[in-house]
Amino acid sequence: MTEQPAPRAEGAAEAPGLSRAQRRLRSERRILEAARELFARQGFERTTIRAVAAAAGVDPALVMQHFGSKQGLFTQAVRVAVPESPAAQARDQEQVVDALLGSLGLKLDGLPASSLAMMRSMLTHPEAAAHAREVLEAQISGLAEATAGPEARARAALLMSITVGVAVCHQLLALDSLRGTPQDRLAALLRPALRALLDEDPG
Amino acid sequence: MTEQPAPRAEGAAEAPGLSRAQRRLRSERRILEAARELFARQGFERTTIRAVAAAAGVDPALVMQHFGSKQGLFTQAVRVAVPESPAAQARDQEQVVDALLGSLGLKLDGLPASSLAMMRSMLTHPEAAAHAREVLEAQISGLAEATAGPEARARAALLMSITVGVAVCHQLLALDSLRGTPQDRLAALLRPALRALLDEDPG
Repeated sequence: MTEQPAPRAEGAAEAPGLSRAQRRLRSERRILEAARELFARQGFERTTIRAVAAAAGVDPALVMQHFGSKQGLFTQAVRVAVPESPAAQARDQEQVVDALLGSLGLKLDGLPASSLAMMRSMLTHPEAAAHAREVLEAQISGLAEATAGPEARARAALLMSITVGVAVCHQLLALDSLRGTPQDRLAALLRPALRALLDEDPG
Repeated sequence: MTEQPAPRAEGAAEAPGLSRAQRRLRSERRILEAARELFARQGFERTTIRAVAAAAGVDPALVMQHFGSKQGLFTQAVRVAVPESPAAQARDQEQVVDALLGSLGLKLDGLPASSLAMMRSMLTHPEAAAHAREVLEAQISGLAEATAGPEARARAALLMSITVGVAVCHQLLALDSLRGTPQDRLAALLRPALRALLDEDPG
């Protein structure tokens, strides 16, 4: 922690041109960014208000004043609008596969910190789990609508499970066997598997 | 906690026919079983020595005496022999697919508590993450050997990622879209996807 800047209170001194409301917004944003990074790296339980405050360069009391509690901070940090299913706009099976691989590519390139923070804690923190369920079921619904066909919802759920599995193993567990393979090869190898899940006659 | 039996010390009173060493082994086993269930349900951080002791019907001091710390208890609870890759004995592609679906079926029917305990904490607890990596990489090696072919290791890593994703979404997140589908249908829908990952020419 020695390289952290010394905590400072939310004051007019460093930003004399800003109104009180603007300064408030600015420090909220800075705290949320720091919180997302720490929650993403180490999960809910291991992240402290003190560490977030230090990373944001503010006083811990200011974090409490803005967010009430670590739980309140976490809620704000992971709660983003539920993203539309990447495949909702797809017009055929190949576009669905492209959309899924595209969203997975984004995931492997670096998920947004809010998503990483949610995924990191989704197995151990009830609120992160509830939010993960909500996001995944919404994406499954969009995907099922785009794909239609028999058992569309089960297929969509399995497709989302595959992207969760690859993101967890690649981003959160950082398995060498995945990290050591270029992303375009991972996508090329996955493509026929995703396609197979969309085929109408799996037997 | 009111329905828990009152904690009791490791004594000769309740098992007069057993030697001291046998009683010790017996209470160790009982503590480990209780620990696996609690770690599996709520993860490392939220599990307390006190709750494990209550569930095992022993005094918390006895848990400390046996395992030294919550960390020591966790290590013993999740550390089982690394299981052989389910596909290591397979002689052709279809047997590999069968083995993978078989092991996934076991996972969906109820993973052993030690595996659930490891998976539950693998994203937030360093030791669970290290153990998960070790188990997964060992299984990937076995699978890559069994499948051979170009990019065997990357394919094997993706196959394991798929089983991790389905197990996480079905067992730990309990997504309705998966829970609402009979297991044999999930297996039937997954089969062509696994097969496709084993095909030698994905383009």
